[in-house]
Amino acid sequence: MKRIVVWLALALALAFAANAQPPAAQDGTQPVLVDGRDWQRMRAEGAHAPMFAAEQARVERMVRAAMAQGVVVPVPKDPGGGYTHEQHKRNYLALQGAGALYRLTGDRAYADFARDMLLEYARLYPTLGPHPARRGEQTSGRLFWQQLNDSVWLAHAIQGYDAIRDTLTAADRDRVDEDVFRRMARFLSEESPERFDAIHNHATWATAGVGMTGYVLRDRDLVDRALLGLAKDGRAGFLAQVDRLFSPDGYYAEGPYYQRYALAPFVIFAGAIQRNDPQRGIFKRKDGVLLKAVDTLVQTSYAGYFFPINDAMPDKGLDTEELVAGIAIAYAQTQDARLLSVAQRQGRTVLTPEGLRVAEGVAEKLAKPFAFRPLMLRDGADGDRGGLAILRMDDGHPDDEHGQALVMKNTSQGMGHGHFDKLNWLFYDNGRAVVTDYGAARFLNVEAKSGGTYLPENNSWAKQTVAHNTLVVDERSHFDGDWKRGEAYAPEPLLFDAKADTQIASARMRDAYDGVTFTRTLALVRHPDLLFPAAVDLLRVEGAAPARYDLPLHFNGHIMSVGFQAQRHDAVRPVLGARAGYQHLWVDAESAASTEVRSLAWLLGGRFYTYRFGASAPSRAWLVESGANDPDFNLRREPALIQRVDGAADATFFGVLEPHGEYNGTAEYVRGADSRIAGIAHVRGGDASIVVLRLTSGSALALAVADDPASDRAHRIVANGRTYEWKGAWARFDSPAAQSARPGPPDTKESP
Amino acid sequence: MKRIVVWLALALALAFAANAQPPAAQDGTQPVLVDGRDWQRMRAEGAHAPMFAAEQARVERMVRAAMAQGVVVPVPKDPGGGYTHEQHKRNYLALQGAGALYRLTGDRAYADFARDMLLEYARLYPTLGPHPARRGEQTSGRLFWQQLNDSVWLAHAIQGYDAIRDTLTAADRDRVDEDVFRRMARFLSEESPERFDAIHNHATWATAGVGMTGYVLRDRDLVDRALLGLAKDGRAGFLAQVDRLFSPDGYYAEGPYYQRYALAPFVIFAGAIQRNDPQRGIFKRKDGVLLKAVDTLVQTSYAGYFFPINDAMPDKGLDTEELVAGIAIAYAQTQDARLLSVAQRQGRTVLTPEGLRVAEGVAEKLAKPFAFRPLMLRDGADGDRGGLAILRMDDGHPDDEHGQALVMKNTSQGMGHGHFDKLNWLFYDNGRAVVTDYGAARFLNVEAKSGGTYLPENNSWAKQTVAHNTLVVDERSHFDGDWKRGEAYAPEPLLFDAKADTQIASARMRDAYDGVTFTRTLALVRHPDLLFPAAVDLLRVEGAAPARYDLPLHFNGHIMSVGFQAQRHDAVRPVLGARAGYQHLWVDAESAASTEVRSLAWLLGGRFYTYRFGASAPSRAWLVESGANDPDFNLRREPALIQRVDGAADATFFGVLEPHGEYNGTAEYVRGADSRIAGIAHVRGGDASIVVLRLTSGSALALAVADDPASDRAHRIVANGRTYEWKGAWARFDSPAAQSARPGPPDTKESP
Repeated sequence: MKRIVVWLALALALAFAANAQPPAAQDGTQPVLVDGRDWQRMRAEGAHAPMFAAEQARVERMVRAAMAQGVVVPVPKDPGGGYTHEQHKRNYLALQGAGALYRLTGDRAYADFARDMLLEYARLYPTLGPHPARRGEQTSGRLFWQQLNDSVWLAHAIQGYDAIRDTLTAADRDRVDEDVFRRMARFLSEESPERFDAIHNHATWATAGVGMTGYVLRDRDLVDRALLGLAKDGRAGFLAQVDRLFSPDGYYAEGPYYQRYALAPFVIFAGAIQRNDPQRGIFKRKDGVLLKAVDTLVQTSYAGYFFPINDAMPDKGLDTEELVAGIAIAYAQTQDARLLSVAQRQGRTVLTPEGLRVAEGVAEKLAKPFAFRPLMLRDGADGDRGGLAILRMDDGHPDDEHGQALVMKNTSQGMGHGHFDKLNWLFYDNGRAVVTDYGAARFLNVEAKSGGTYLPENNSWAKQTVAHNTLVVDERSHFDGDWKRGEAYAPEPLLFDAKADTQIASARMRDAYDGVTFTRTLALVRHPDLLFPAAVDLLRVEGAAPARYDLPLHFNGHIMSVGFQAQRHDAVRPVLGARAGYQHLWVDAESAASTEVRSLAWLLGGRFYTYRFGASAPSRAWLVESGANDPDFNLRREPALIQRVDGAADATFFGVLEPHGEYNGTAEYVRGADSRIAGIAHVRGGDASIVVLRLTSGSALALAVADDPASDRAHRIVANGRTYEWKGAWARFDSPAAQSARPGPPDTKESP
Repeated sequence: MKRIVVWLALALALAFAANAQPPAAQDGTQPVLVDGRDWQRMRAEGAHAPMFAAEQARVERMVRAAMAQGVVVPVPKDPGGGYTHEQHKRNYLALQGAGALYRLTGDRAYADFARDMLLEYARLYPTLGPHPARRGEQTSGRLFWQQLNDSVWLAHAIQGYDAIRDTLTAADRDRVDEDVFRRMARFLSEESPERFDAIHNHATWATAGVGMTGYVLRDRDLVDRALLGLAKDGRAGFLAQVDRLFSPDGYYAEGPYYQRYALAPFVIFAGAIQRNDPQRGIFKRKDGVLLKAVDTLVQTSYAGYFFPINDAMPDKGLDTEELVAGIAIAYAQTQDARLLSVAQRQGRTVLTPEGLRVAEGVAEKLAKPFAFRPLMLRDGADGDRGGLAILRMDDGHPDDEHGQALVMKNTSQGMGHGHFDKLNWLFYDNGRAVVTDYGAARFLNVEAKSGGTYLPENNSWAKQTVAHNTLVVDERSHFDGDWKRGEAYAPEPLLFDAKADTQIASARMRDAYDGVTFTRTLALVRHPDLLFPAAVDLLRVEGAAPARYDLPLHFNGHIMSVGFQAQRHDAVRPVLGARAGYQHLWVDAESAASTEVRSLAWLLGGRFYTYRFGASAPSRAWLVESGANDPDFNLRREPALIQRVDGAADATFFGVLEPHGEYNGTAEYVRGADSRIAGIAHVRGGDASIVVLRLTSGSALALAVADDPASDRAHRIVANGRTYEWKGAWARFDSPAAQSARPGPPDTKESP
């Protein structure tokens, strides 16, 4: 991946201001990505807005360091993370920074440095062929091993060039125009037609770089190709990407990690379009999807980190540089003061007119808390390819500032970076991931780890179904691990509802395995007798033939107690399986088959978690850990619990995860170490299922889910002397302690 | 362990003020642990010092919650962590808090609540025999399973009682005096003579509780027994504890974790003594050792956490409540503004006159940075039982705020909580432990984990030598794991020196194994061609017969590259050995024997670490991980590297650990991932050893260490055409790049 400069949104300008003016008359060399008046305002006001001033100081340090080193433009040689790779990255940042600083300070030395460097590129660039470290002819860049990096170089450097272009002699300007920018734009567009015309985030970087180059060089043809595709018919190009890469809810099919990355070229180029082609109404396109995408990106985070679904580095979060630019742009468009609290958390902004506004808003203490909320983010260009369901509760406890989040991944495959994890879930509590997603197996840019690219274990482990918290059939991954097959099928969302004390989502998947349909419902339930909201899971499998059904739970924490009989493998540690990720799992313990409801408790971040789980058929439980068959120590070693039902065609898994108590190592006390749930049970009626939680207080809570989510359909289940009646997709039944303490038949019982 | 209230130092009062006055005339019921005038000053001024006011508000919330619950004094039943245990702990905190709040607010409701609770204790306490959950008759308390907890109860509750005693009717006062405090004091002193007269931190809690009870009840006999032992001859009691439990440098033999715990009764009771028996000059005793102990406790931390040597919970640090009180007392005595920065880090202070001073100092912005510095902390009452060597460098880089710390554990055994880790080392960098100590195997107060006490694996793993970074002979621990034998022997410190670019410590251990002497030198070296200071290790073993020598390195981080050929056990994972901790080690990889210098690189917290290591005889290398033979999942799973020399009588191990580079996940770049050390070598001369580091810059750095540390002795080694000459215990030789680039014989070479 690329380093994205936080202030990359230099392209965004005057047109965003309320009193937008048409560009001033130009001689063809004046800045167009940010215009002169805006530069002047930033120069005049920036010092009074501490966040802006701090960013300017940071950029000055960076550019001064580059200037002290002199112009260094090495012949391309190294792959990602290597010297020439990193130097060319430093150079585009230095070019962009030098351009901004020239405008913000008036110091000609910055402009001269950028010019000298660009002249050096003008000498080098025409001599370059495919990069020696390329991984394939198609994807090879010139300056970098991947063409993508060349696009990113162009998108940054052109901004710096725009700011200083009027300081060059005509001869130098022609040289740089032609031998750097037009050559590079040509290479990335007409000489790479399949990549340029793709509907893909790599193409967005290419169109952004080429399009902005078109504006700066006053080359309408380049601009139009960037906007509408090489054929200028709108079937490809940036506008088509806006329409097709984001869902109507601003969700990007690859997930938040790539959404963050994809967002950057969208927002920079959109700014340039707004500035130079305001009639395009780019920020209103598709019902304002670009601004929705910024909000969605923030929503798909917890405690500052993005949900690491699909190929994602788990350390990426709200402070990522792409989102710094995104927040500035969104704030300039919406003046939504809640975005300022995200900016505060980021602690920085961008050196653009929008960044100045953010800095001013923060300085004026306008920030309000960002409104994280439960939501269903539809996937697919038309919103009909499943979606990401996010359940959130937040009681505002001072010792629980992040609340709970439950993420249910009912999205489409997400292309080549998608994982095979239909109806997977993640659970967050107390500021941490409790039910986890491995994310990508990769050490980004670390040469010693497969050159910094995706590791072999990304395919053999991280993408596989067993590396997730969802159903595995016969030890094979969804779609047998073929993402192109996966692209054809999306889950069917059945239900999304967010009431005060119950939030619930449900979806059905038919095509991950031939002949197998599985339907999952996940809920967050709040109850006065529970310390924190608990997560309820109900997964129903219907198969054409008996099979092996595995349901893993990847949990984070140190095991406190194993609530079931299990044979320990603690003197010789075997491996669980042979393929589809199973070969990477060490077996720590395994139980015999039974129908008991089991439990597992662990400790994480000073809080206890008790997970109770059972199945409608006899099941075994396995405690495993990742890290087997990992010759190069590439994998993190993380625990998981796997529940297995063997030989049934239909089966239902049910479970409840309960956060409770406190372990305070500083003050040395423990509270609430015992679960407040006495037991759970599953009841199946004709057309619905119920999960019953018996609490230690004597209360009970039952969550009923109908197979058919139709809102007008009535359901009735009689179980253990109690009748449950409701209408619609789901219902919750609370029995107070007094009632269940009365003599008479119990209203719940343990499975089966 | 006990919860220690942060404001437990209520006993410290007026006498600390510069203008100390004798106590006012009293009717025998006025407060004596903090006197009335001081309470009035706190009442008047506390609101103006935010840190004090915040603490008062926190205590008010706690006491108000207790009052809302009403007086709850259950019959003792549960062990640590259980309900009755925790309730009696809450009660002593509530008593102490209610007393303080009555004085600080004048609200009689607090006094009445404390009275009612004490009357309830007066009803219960006389009925109690040994605790039903006791682990032994000797150690049984009455309210708690351990007598220690009863002592802590007394030391807190008496402070609360002191503050409200004058509000009780004479009849109630007599009842509480006799049936709670005098009975309890009697139980802890004359009825438990062996424990009360011990020189041990448990006895300090007992003497503190009993002695303060003596002051409050105006019972001189109790006071004298507390100060001088039951026989009142000074061979036991608090004063003897002051003299004998801390070394002249204020180091406590059990290590920082227990020093923190032990410190609390020392400082509270010392305050009471200073107030009531100022002629004792308690804070000047033994050259001011109690104040030194506070400074030492801060010095034995890194990035806010104590060095986890011996039985220690790794999450304990400067914000621990005991040290909050300690800092207040030390500041009141010394007015050292650097202590205020520790208080700022703690974020709170105590509700005492000293706490008010701290809060006022912080409010007036007087704080200066605490001066962490290299130092040798002698161990033993007379300073002749080895010591803890701390090397520290701090270049003040903004991205390296904590600098480096290297800890060498040359201390005495440290009694029953001591680990078998003579000449062990720890290394810290970038805010994290890089070369680690497991600490204690325990989940404090977690009932599900062996009732919250030390786990079986504390003996079988955490204390064992192989769980540390020091020499293991023939797979046996030092002293064969017998701490009483270990008590008899301490290492011999040979050298401690802290120059600008080289800090060095050395010690020799003779008696950990029969017939084996090992001498270790550890150094921190700064070099302009290295990004950060590196750690150099030189360990020389001299044995009477051929043996198996293992040198483990417990490192923290994810392996980036294994710089040697090794057979991987990644499909079936065996266990390394059968006993002395080896049974807990899974084998991940093992190499054949060779004399090559090997390397291992890992990533931690965004920084790379490369460890290069070799030996004077053929060695094997093992990559292992803790967690085998751990049926209850009690152990953390942490990696280690073990270097093994088999069949030699004498051997030298040498190694260099180099922090370098940066992995920035947010900005997605990697810098300096390659080590700047090209190779290391070991040269042995007649009476000295040299470790040579060849840097990639071409420079070289040689560290020479003489067997005899005498400062006046000259040494000369000729090796590979170069002559090293120096006088004294050690020397460093730097060869610039230009020089070593000249033609001629190399000045270093690889071992052997």
